Amino acid sequence: MPLYQATASAPVNIACIKYWGKRDTKLILPTNSSLSVTLDQDQLRSTTTSRADSSFEKDRLWLNGVEEEIKSGGRLATCISEMRRLRRESTLTQVQISPYNVHISSRNNFPTAAGLASSASGFAALVSSLAALYALPASPSQLSLIARQGSGSACRSLFGGFVAWEMGSSPDGSDSLAVEVAPRSHWPQLQALICVVSDDKKGTSSTSGMQRTVETSALLQHRIVSVVPERMAAISAAIHARDFNTFARITMQDSNQFHAVALDTDPPIFYMNDVSRAIIALIVEYNRVAVERGGSLKAAYTFDAGPNAVIYAPEENLKEIVELIVRYFPQADTFKDPFGLFGAAGVRGKVVEGFNEAVAKPFGVGAVKGLIHTRVGDGPRVLGVEEALLGPNGLPKVA
Amino acid sequence: MPLYQATASAPVNIACIKYWGKRDTKLILPTNSSLSVTLDQDQLRSTTTSRADSSFEKDRLWLNGVEEEIKSGGRLATCISEMRRLRRESTLTQVQISPYNVHISSRNNFPTAAGLASSASGFAALVSSLAALYALPASPSQLSLIARQGSGSACRSLFGGFVAWEMGSSPDGSDSLAVEVAPRSHWPQLQALICVVSDDKKGTSSTSGMQRTVETSALLQHRIVSVVPERMAAISAAIHARDFNTFARITMQDSNQFHAVALDTDPPIFYMNDVSRAIIALIVEYNRVAVERGGSLKAAYTFDAGPNAVIYAPEENLKEIVELIVRYFPQADTFKDPFGLFGAAGVRGKVVEGFNEAVAKPFGVGAVKGLIHTRVGDGPRVLGVEEALLGPNGLPKVA
Repeated sequence: MPLYQATASAPVNIACIKYWGKRDTKLILPTNSSLSVTLDQDQLRSTTTSRADSSFEKDRLWLNGVEEEIKSGGRLATCISEMRRLRRESTLTQVQISPYNVHISSRNNFPTAAGLASSASGFAALVSSLAALYALPASPSQLSLIARQGSGSACRSLFGGFVAWEMGSSPDGSDSLAVEVAPRSHWPQLQALICVVSDDKKGTSSTSGMQRTVETSALLQHRIVSVVPERMAAISAAIHARDFNTFARITMQDSNQFHAVALDTDPPIFYMNDVSRAIIALIVEYNRVAVERGGSLKAAYTFDAGPNAVIYAPEENLKEIVELIVRYFPQADTFKDPFGLFGAAGVRGKVVEGFNEAVAKPFGVGAVKGLIHTRVGDGPRVLGVEEALLGPNGLPKVA
Repeated sequence: MPLYQATASAPVNIACIKYWGKRDTKLILPTNSSLSVTLDQDQLRSTTTSRADSSFEKDRLWLNGVEEEIKSGGRLATCISEMRRLRRESTLTQVQISPYNVHISSRNNFPTAAGLASSASGFAALVSSLAALYALPASPSQLSLIARQGSGSACRSLFGGFVAWEMGSSPDGSDSLAVEVAPRSHWPQLQALICVVSDDKKGTSSTSGMQRTVETSALLQHRIVSVVPERMAAISAAIHARDFNTFARITMQDSNQFHAVALDTDPPIFYMNDVSRAIIALIVEYNRVAVERGGSLKAAYTFDAGPNAVIYAPEENLKEIVELIVRYFPQADTFKDPFGLFGAAGVRGKVVEGFNEAVAKPFGVGAVKGLIHTRVGDGPRVLGVEEALLGPNGLPKVA
């Protein structure tokens, strides 16, 4: 018997133009287009193995070794059945494996507790592994239509580099998909520092939060109709021109506006806390010094539905940025330095000349509980059998 | 020689529909109308004595005993010269005292450090004392035109009760004035608890902050054109109907939206901190319990350009609200209990039945460094000579 199995990994993406609001909650059709940077899988990825076997009694899925229920009509079931449909419709394959049940094992290489959006990389890896299993000729954009129904922002993890999720207009969602704005190779110098922020407050889930904003914010419609389309065009042009100054300005403005419409919700939604506010103050001051000296913006913060900061910057600024963050947020753990910015002595906190240190007060150890240095990355990868997460018995391998 | 002197006091007001943005920075003409509640002068007031004397060599002003420079063309000079003009134009008076220089002494009965807006009560008291000195027949609305040029929101402190600042449309500002929506006696049961929040961050001044919002926020124009006019009408109707539920909903929504457009500013402006957010969470939960039990909203928070919370509520809810705040924000000082809610034992923190205590974590002593219980109040008062703040020598009395 041949083994019908495939393994794929998929990246995390962090939006510069934020997705916040659905016009169709079942199909996950957004109220506005969005745009993101795909981050390098060397630092952050989800890996998924899917196997089809006639002996399997039902579809099953394990996430980080723990079985998750595949609810009938739920998002997981939708993605799996949509992929089966593509297999049936594919003219390239003859073997009828689509009727077989599947076992799926998925793992993230980063802690779920970090509050990093793992649903995007997770659903992208799921769809990618099933596409490999079923040997589909589907393009990333076609697959993004299915990943979108698992988790909206997952559709953007089907591409590397710079990715737009076009909102589309069709009621059936057939034109609400991801497209590549530019590949990773167009602007490989773009890097990111993720500041994992401690939070003792349970946040509002993005799924319920965004619908409350759709229902109650008096400002959201204006954002959707009059602000986002212009920003999508302008940031795409900035990416094509590798114009970091414009990219940074729009990224920060759109992060702020997303949090502004969350605050304009009734009752209001807060994702940023005092640590997040301090990180913003540091980046604003860091940019102010650069602009005052005749330069342009050197870093851009952005915050998703949580207190964590992602700081985008050209690689030549990352050393200063890590030193700046460490100056105000001392780290308990050694800074993982994948690009070798610092020697054996490690990083020491400092600020650039002319920096007004009074813009924020230094916090204690643990306020920022981790720093992840990464960069723009590639799209999903199909991996070899040695990376498979299912054992011969069709159950997850022990990690 | 007769003594040409008058003393007046004026109240603080806290807006329910927020003023944020000027269309004319010199005349202080706002980009939208606003509406406030005047607070009781028994708790918070500015008192000002003005004296005109032929022997005075120049106009001088002392604030809390410290002399302030009256800059030529500045806001103080504008208010004084506008009041002189009214005196000259008044047909009721014959004695020519308007050419005399004035000495002015002003005091607030609350600490400036508390971050409570003292410019509103201060300019209202200044204009009121000069109106009394000059024996002007001017109405509060006429005086509000002048107080507005000292500090925009000061115009609303010319009335007690519930006050609208109509933005007007004339380029000379002649129709941008305060009008009474309802007197204090219409709804005397409305009370307020001010939570003075500790802040270690220097905030953006409202004068510079609002202009940055006007220049950079993509959402402000929509607020001005499409949101505020409707809210002004709806909250006025709610006040007329003594409909606290609607009053509370709009008040909270508009506080949130003001902070949302501040956040949509580039760079963003934050006035609320984690303590402010926790107070919001407590009031949201307190209201949730009430609504779940078939009742209506019982309290409304609002935040100006700083972290302090003002909680409006009908008097019957104040006991529960003080207990709630004290439960999460222990107080170093004895709660001043002007309305005798608690006996000699004083207040003890507690929550109402059904309250989910996990919505916020308790803070340490000092996070909320003071609580002021007050209520809707009356407009400026002309006081007797025994309250005068200038001594026989024309200098401030020692406090």
